[in-house]
Amino acid sequence: MSTESPSGEDLIIARYFQPLARHPGAFGLTDDAAILTPPPGYDVVLKADAIIGSVHFFADDPADAVARKALRVNLSDLAAKGAEPAGFLLSLALPEGIDEDWLGAFASGLKADAEAYGCPLMGGDTDKTPGPAVISIAAFGLVPHGTMVRRKGARAGDAVVVTGTIGDAALGLRLKRQPDLATRWGLAPRLREHLAARYLLPDPRNAIAVPLRAHASAAMDVSDGLAGDLGKLCRASVIAAGIAVARVPLSEAAAAAVAAEPELIETVLTGGDDYEVLCTMAPDKVASFRAAAAATGVTATEIGRVTEGEGARFLDANGRPLTFARTSYSHF
Amino acid sequence: MSTESPSGEDLIIARYFQPLARHPGAFGLTDDAAILTPPPGYDVVLKADAIIGSVHFFADDPADAVARKALRVNLSDLAAKGAEPAGFLLSLALPEGIDEDWLGAFASGLKADAEAYGCPLMGGDTDKTPGPAVISIAAFGLVPHGTMVRRKGARAGDAVVVTGTIGDAALGLRLKRQPDLATRWGLAPRLREHLAARYLLPDPRNAIAVPLRAHASAAMDVSDGLAGDLGKLCRASVIAAGIAVARVPLSEAAAAAVAAEPELIETVLTGGDDYEVLCTMAPDKVASFRAAAAATGVTATEIGRVTEGEGARFLDANGRPLTFARTSYSHF
Repeated sequence: MSTESPSGEDLIIARYFQPLARHPGAFGLTDDAAILTPPPGYDVVLKADAIIGSVHFFADDPADAVARKALRVNLSDLAAKGAEPAGFLLSLALPEGIDEDWLGAFASGLKADAEAYGCPLMGGDTDKTPGPAVISIAAFGLVPHGTMVRRKGARAGDAVVVTGTIGDAALGLRLKRQPDLATRWGLAPRLREHLAARYLLPDPRNAIAVPLRAHASAAMDVSDGLAGDLGKLCRASVIAAGIAVARVPLSEAAAAAVAAEPELIETVLTGGDDYEVLCTMAPDKVASFRAAAAATGVTATEIGRVTEGEGARFLDANGRPLTFARTSYSHF
Repeated sequence: MSTESPSGEDLIIARYFQPLARHPGAFGLTDDAAILTPPPGYDVVLKADAIIGSVHFFADDPADAVARKALRVNLSDLAAKGAEPAGFLLSLALPEGIDEDWLGAFASGLKADAEAYGCPLMGGDTDKTPGPAVISIAAFGLVPHGTMVRRKGARAGDAVVVTGTIGDAALGLRLKRQPDLATRWGLAPRLREHLAARYLLPDPRNAIAVPLRAHASAAMDVSDGLAGDLGKLCRASVIAAGIAVARVPLSEAAAAAVAAEPELIETVLTGGDDYEVLCTMAPDKVASFRAAAAATGVTATEIGRVTEGEGARFLDANGRPLTFARTSYSHF
């Protein structure tokens, strides 16, 4: 031949993904790799997380929400590390039957979030798969050298703080699987929709990255359940924590469900998909952190204290520790 | 509960993947993200590529080779961009039925290559999938600021150069699917094994990253077929190229197969999975580049010239352009 025509994969990239690649180092996706040049004195924070069809999302979830969830679960980790988003790579494995409508909606959701969070597409690849869709994202953030907020670092006496509300997504997932639970829990449509939306689309707390760096002794995002994730933070920090369950912030919907069926507190505390920030800080910093978070529209609530010892305890109104069948979600 | 026990996923990470995470910024995989701090004046080169079971490898391929292939296809891109490997993130989607033997072999192959190429594991995630295994890697390299070798930049008059030999992997794949072809092609077992090995495990040319930066006007790795990839380089550089097919370097095995069945030249030139470096440079730089590559054990061969115009032409012994049914592999 004398002239090459672009392949189908190149056409998909040009049509759907080039509009997301506005970072100069992405070279408009016309090269084989991208370039990120951190400002002098900054570290690049690296995070990869994938979501898989029928594992992390439902086949009938809207494609734009699937794309945004895939990016947001990674943005949430950057937020909890105090890092400001800089860009991401996307590896897309697409099943047969994905059509232009799906791809168009996927790209448009991804573009909206890439712009909203200041996290442009830098590159990636697209393949067909005989299995479910797999959306693998590697996200990059920036922090001044040495200031990434670690999972370890919590000290005895520190306050334990969480953003937003806990348990909504786990309850939303149970409703998605068993819609008649809404009647048993006595949830008005508005409250049902709140829980469904919180499962469908996380709301990562990137707005508080800078105050988090300034206040927190340790942090991580809550993705596998508050109980299990606090346990991980305690293990990393070689420390214990005691949480007053009554102080864990619940949405109106979650509070209504738990009031109707008190055992749901276990789903709330262990179910996961919260994508809130869990952090510890000196007690005298809490007010300043809460104010800084509130200025960005994010609530932050003190739920307990770090103590000497090991493990996370969740105490009921009588100070008795709850026991859970399992503390967090795991695939294995 | 009072003490959290690590989840199954955490145990898999601790057992199989922590030994690969020797970079200080990986924090032993005990945090939620990793840190990469480029030396002052360096750019971070970013690349993501995934391989999928029954698409890019066979279910019965040895797990250590699958792991190494997943890393090497990304290392090959870093090589062709003149970047020195700095680390990688791994997103692993594992089907039911993956056992400890498979995981152990996978991790051990990955560890061997992470060490051999100086590219440590920085982080990632592991999930179960109802589909085939998907191994998504995002790899990071370093180049002095502004020196990444681009796909564009080839100039009329430049020499076109490739490393190693072309077509082995594509012939190896055909043999894997149809073993009796070895008889038709008259291949001794040694030559058959050479082609099979070249398909199973690429040999990325990271050793020549520094000379490539010093010599090349444009470069990319050959992954989708020499003809199609040279076409992409020509499009990016807004230029044409003429290749003398007789000068394209073939292994003894590929030469024997093509001698037995001359039509195989199309498979050789368009089949892909070569993971060699294709580059252009001023003709007076070729000898110096060949010498520098040879010093690292890599052969480099001049196969043609860049000319004004557009498109890549492959010319037979009589100077007539070959025509191909398709110039490169595409999933779509």
